[in-house]
Amino acid sequence: MKLKSFSHLNCSLAQSLEIIGERWTLLILRDAFFGIKRFDAFQQSLGIARNILSARLVRLVEEGILEKRPTEDGRHEYVLTEKGLDLQPVLLSMTHWGDKYGAGPEGAPVVFIDREKGEPIASMAVHASDGRVLRTREIKAVKGPGYYKDSQA
Amino acid sequence: MKLKSFSHLNCSLAQSLEIIGERWTLLILRDAFFGIKRFDAFQQSLGIARNILSARLVRLVEEGILEKRPTEDGRHEYVLTEKGLDLQPVLLSMTHWGDKYGAGPEGAPVVFIDREKGEPIASMAVHASDGRVLRTREIKAVKGPGYYKDSQA
Repeated sequence: MKLKSFSHLNCSLAQSLEIIGERWTLLILRDAFFGIKRFDAFQQSLGIARNILSARLVRLVEEGILEKRPTEDGRHEYVLTEKGLDLQPVLLSMTHWGDKYGAGPEGAPVVFIDREKGEPIASMAVHASDGRVLRTREIKAVKGPGYYKDSQA
Repeated sequence: MKLKSFSHLNCSLAQSLEIIGERWTLLILRDAFFGIKRFDAFQQSLGIARNILSARLVRLVEEGILEKRPTEDGRHEYVLTEKGLDLQPVLLSMTHWGDKYGAGPEGAPVVFIDREKGEPIASMAVHASDGRVLRTREIKAVKGPGYYKDSQA
């Protein structure tokens, strides 16, 4: 059974999910953020079937999230593009949520540090333009310039 | 074929994906953030098969992300818990990424506004504890208190 496509929903969230809404894909991206570049290294890190990994990497290259580059040894490596690097807030939001609700009593398995100050990064949150942290009820959605009649947010 | 479980990976991202890493689930949550509470309203909004919607709602209630509450008319509604509300950075990070890379030339279909100031919220980003926006190379990962030998970040 094919998954129903969300692209008709004219929703930026749905469009993102079309591309990255697959669990392996986000774990491949996590590994890319940790510096993994080679097919075999992704395969070893994730324990994922080679055909699935291959399909996911092809898709990520097609979407311009990873760049496939030849290496000196005649093979290839996969490197995050700017579009891929821009997914870091997505991954870190999920990671912090998992730290808060899924981690054991010991706490987070991995902590992300601001290199300059040597301190943990701020918890991922929604901010106002002046930097205030906003909770759900302090935000409202309005029609944007790309809204059309059948849009859903 | 069953999806391989990521829970053994001791990774907060993987743990989050175990729970919310399914595309319908995030769209159900999107609708919940937009105020949808009734089964039939979710069904109508998403055009999702009733059995799939039912299974996803059960899971979200089990995970403590939605609360199932009886209503005066003898039916039920589904309301975001605190744990569910804490997913807003995940959804908005995906939405902003989709706005940037997936929206048409007109721009974002929906814009999120800070009610107090009436201005769009800040772009979802990773922040240092002092509020600076951090790019990927300004962040490093270190072992946290919950790290153990076989951990993967």
